[in-house]
Amino acid sequence: MDIGNPRWWGWGTLDATYSLEGRLGFWPKLHEWLDLPDDTPEQETPPVALEDITLPASRLDESGFESLRRLLGEEAVVTDKQARIQHAYGKSYRDLVRIRAGHIPNPPDAVVYPEDEAEIAALLSWAAEHAVTVIPFGGGSSVLGGVEPPTGERPTLTLEMAKLNRVLSVDPESLTARVQAGATGPGIEAQLHEHGLTLGHFPQSFEFSTLGGWIATRAAGQNSIGYGKIEDMTQAVRMVSPAGIIETKDVPASATGPSVRELVVGSEGIFGVITEATMRVHPRPELQDYRGILLHSFEEGIAAFRELMQCKDLRLSIVRLSDAPETAGYAALAHEHHGLRRLFDSLAQLYVRAHRHDLDGGSALMVLGFDGDRQWIPRQWELALEICREHGGLLLGRAIGRSWKRDRFTQPYLRDTLLDRSILVDTLETATSWSNLVQLHTALARSLKAAIASNGGGPGYVMNHVSHAYEQGASLYATFLGRQIPTSDPLAKQAQWEGIKGAATDAILSSGGTLSHHHGIGRDHAPWLKGEIGQTGIDALRALKLALDPTGTMNPGILLPA
Amino acid sequence: MDIGNPRWWGWGTLDATYSLEGRLGFWPKLHEWLDLPDDTPEQETPPVALEDITLPASRLDESGFESLRRLLGEEAVVTDKQARIQHAYGKSYRDLVRIRAGHIPNPPDAVVYPEDEAEIAALLSWAAEHAVTVIPFGGGSSVLGGVEPPTGERPTLTLEMAKLNRVLSVDPESLTARVQAGATGPGIEAQLHEHGLTLGHFPQSFEFSTLGGWIATRAAGQNSIGYGKIEDMTQAVRMVSPAGIIETKDVPASATGPSVRELVVGSEGIFGVITEATMRVHPRPELQDYRGILLHSFEEGIAAFRELMQCKDLRLSIVRLSDAPETAGYAALAHEHHGLRRLFDSLAQLYVRAHRHDLDGGSALMVLGFDGDRQWIPRQWELALEICREHGGLLLGRAIGRSWKRDRFTQPYLRDTLLDRSILVDTLETATSWSNLVQLHTALARSLKAAIASNGGGPGYVMNHVSHAYEQGASLYATFLGRQIPTSDPLAKQAQWEGIKGAATDAILSSGGTLSHHHGIGRDHAPWLKGEIGQTGIDALRALKLALDPTGTMNPGILLPA
Repeated sequence: MDIGNPRWWGWGTLDATYSLEGRLGFWPKLHEWLDLPDDTPEQETPPVALEDITLPASRLDESGFESLRRLLGEEAVVTDKQARIQHAYGKSYRDLVRIRAGHIPNPPDAVVYPEDEAEIAALLSWAAEHAVTVIPFGGGSSVLGGVEPPTGERPTLTLEMAKLNRVLSVDPESLTARVQAGATGPGIEAQLHEHGLTLGHFPQSFEFSTLGGWIATRAAGQNSIGYGKIEDMTQAVRMVSPAGIIETKDVPASATGPSVRELVVGSEGIFGVITEATMRVHPRPELQDYRGILLHSFEEGIAAFRELMQCKDLRLSIVRLSDAPETAGYAALAHEHHGLRRLFDSLAQLYVRAHRHDLDGGSALMVLGFDGDRQWIPRQWELALEICREHGGLLLGRAIGRSWKRDRFTQPYLRDTLLDRSILVDTLETATSWSNLVQLHTALARSLKAAIASNGGGPGYVMNHVSHAYEQGASLYATFLGRQIPTSDPLAKQAQWEGIKGAATDAILSSGGTLSHHHGIGRDHAPWLKGEIGQTGIDALRALKLALDPTGTMNPGILLPA
Repeated sequence: MDIGNPRWWGWGTLDATYSLEGRLGFWPKLHEWLDLPDDTPEQETPPVALEDITLPASRLDESGFESLRRLLGEEAVVTDKQARIQHAYGKSYRDLVRIRAGHIPNPPDAVVYPEDEAEIAALLSWAAEHAVTVIPFGGGSSVLGGVEPPTGERPTLTLEMAKLNRVLSVDPESLTARVQAGATGPGIEAQLHEHGLTLGHFPQSFEFSTLGGWIATRAAGQNSIGYGKIEDMTQAVRMVSPAGIIETKDVPASATGPSVRELVVGSEGIFGVITEATMRVHPRPELQDYRGILLHSFEEGIAAFRELMQCKDLRLSIVRLSDAPETAGYAALAHEHHGLRRLFDSLAQLYVRAHRHDLDGGSALMVLGFDGDRQWIPRQWELALEICREHGGLLLGRAIGRSWKRDRFTQPYLRDTLLDRSILVDTLETATSWSNLVQLHTALARSLKAAIASNGGGPGYVMNHVSHAYEQGASLYATFLGRQIPTSDPLAKQAQWEGIKGAATDAILSSGGTLSHHHGIGRDHAPWLKGEIGQTGIDALRALKLALDPTGTMNPGILLPA
């Protein structure tokens, strides 16, 4: 997708930010937690200027460009510097460290904008014939290197899906909609709202990611408890592969052999380009009612969470349970108020303490909520609160729900602010069964803390939340911070991060977690995929790759280990 | 599986039957509908006696048998006549026509009973080395030729899963259970009941089918609305393929590339042998409360059904809507009573007519029900009945629900009775979106009627029901009857059936239905698979087959078209 005024070296757009105004506790807490040197605010490491970046010359020769332009039209082949830079990386910590330093040795040679599926098919034939690599690109928000060109002599094109951005048709009776893969979150919702419908998929990247990207990576939105993961929403899918078109049938279920739809979902561009899908949609809810609840401990919170998920009368839209460090992190990010509001804040603190809770010392914050109509929601709350109270839950009201909703898409901007201050910050995620969740949480937090320290990151700060839950288990999502090693070398910073990421990934796999619940594999997780699906599983996927992309045109180096 | 006193030429066991006692309207109605000759009752065509059947000699030589017995043990290799006959076919109409005539030119050369996964792996290596075909066999209830040996010179073993029949472990906190693939419906439920749990999978074949068979064919139980299709229940799966073991991770969800689990599910034995799975289970419900409701027409019933499925407060366990011919079929199968009960029957008929319904002339019977506890169920009924009443639904009470439940597993026995009387009877099924359902129903019924007539079956009788529903659509299940052509040649009878089945399958695909919602592909649907998943989809599955079973050992001729 193309956005106006892009923050090419970070998240989103240059006119948006995560404002720290009034959040007076944030920097002091961070200094304490990360043991930052006192002079940190002066140690700013801003991104380089665009004009100071030099890109390598294009590997595609002029006759190649000419035939490409004949194929797609003059304006559909873009080679300017900013376009190549914006499509060189995704949005992982590793990506931002490199792009901020201007380290871009390997951008795509051009960015192409096909108009429709026929042009995509023609492009893939052209690419196979000319030994050119093609990388499908939706919103480019991959945090696992999923859109990064491979190194080597072979020319690489990034295939922008921006022009395939429409809801093609809606079946209101069957509650489905045919949507083109390049449509973004806001674009899809706006078009569905005209029919009184919603897809209900709201990942943190919502504003800047696309349907095709979600399907290709098995994404989960923040309301996945209510609306399902993207694979649950995808009724049928269409993909142009070098070997031909794969289209699955628009039916609610079938028994016609191994699921071809489930081969396309999660394929991360290595089999072909997802062009459209028939999505399961829902009447747009009248109301979203999200509230905060405080539990005495993370373990008690998990017990309540499990019961909420296994209660068959509840249709929650969202539940998120933060562990004690993340709860303290929220507290550190709270706004400080003045006058009457300050008095209310103090009263609220007294109320919390009177119930033996402490936002900053062991209690676990849960945000939960319902999407529905005014009659239905109060009855659901009654049930949910009954369960929470049985586990000692303290209702904090709607303000916390509102503030979470307000900030839900803006947190990635805060990462840019932290990178400005030489702070290492990243997230990772997994999922496991309820019975294994506490053990996995302990192992993951311990491994992250140890790895931050042993990789020169200082004491580090590790916080987790549980979300995206099921009757059988849930996802665990970690955010970790540490000090960047003092160097201007982006590759040294990358190596520091790799040490931490590798240790955490080993810990996840050896503790019964999945390699990823919703970020995908990309380049970064590929070496661990064997630990998830075994050598025979890898061999099966390789055979599929060879059948669908015999010339190795599509997104090489992604998903399958080298 | 091995059952006591098997009815080797038909369904189930010789000591069970579908009793027509007291169902006085049945034969007269059938005579009328099928335009049967008056002397039909005398035209009985019983199955041949076991001793009159001659089987071909085994294609495996004595040294082959010797090494096989060394591998698995003496008693695990069974070659007696009845065992070979019982494993020669599934339970389709085509199968019964042939087995009843003693036409068994191609039984397996032996039936083998491995004890565990290691023996299965050893057997597959042995088979690859000795150029022997292996057919995994669970309950053998396939109605699409899924366990039928291929023709040719190559020896064939049927791999009986009967000894892998245990629930290995239960995780009550995460609501999952690890179950061996050879466990039958009753075996699984009995073992789970010890933990207060249920799997909730009750296909018509429940008594005689196995977990591995369900997973391999993407089965759906009668309560799939409440508990999901088998693929929704299967959290993780383990398969021994000739190329190695595939095991997917026991996690509730993941984003680790194309779903390897969804490659194994539906693989119908062509990639390997499913040995166990981690299944999603549920607390056993206190109560099952099923009732009948009468709608003025099938179309009105579909409107009500759709609303029931799209109501987010309802958690139905089962809904089945019969069209007018099937409703009349149920009426024809009703017991006639005497004395006081006869009076009640008459009053019930008056009640039905007073509401302008007619069981025998256009009204559509819906059976719906809930699994849950005594407090919860009445609140659910209130909501469900409100929706049904808005569509003119007339509540018939629990007697119909009870009688449906009583007969739910016995109807296949009635097929044997009809075959005794030279009546052709078969079922087929599909699924589509709500908006396409009426159109598909019309096209399917019309094509079946026409094909029965043009294949010498007389006027025929075609009845349908809708079940296995989703927010987006539902499955459509047809039962059709006609006169068998007057011949003792089973292959001529098979050809008659093929004419009808082929026309109906063409009609389903050209009307937007799926090739199968829960029976699978087997041999019979394989020629149509391209119409479902396209040539590129077929090529992808072929590549997988070659990677996982390079010597072509596993169940050849199944699933993939020749």
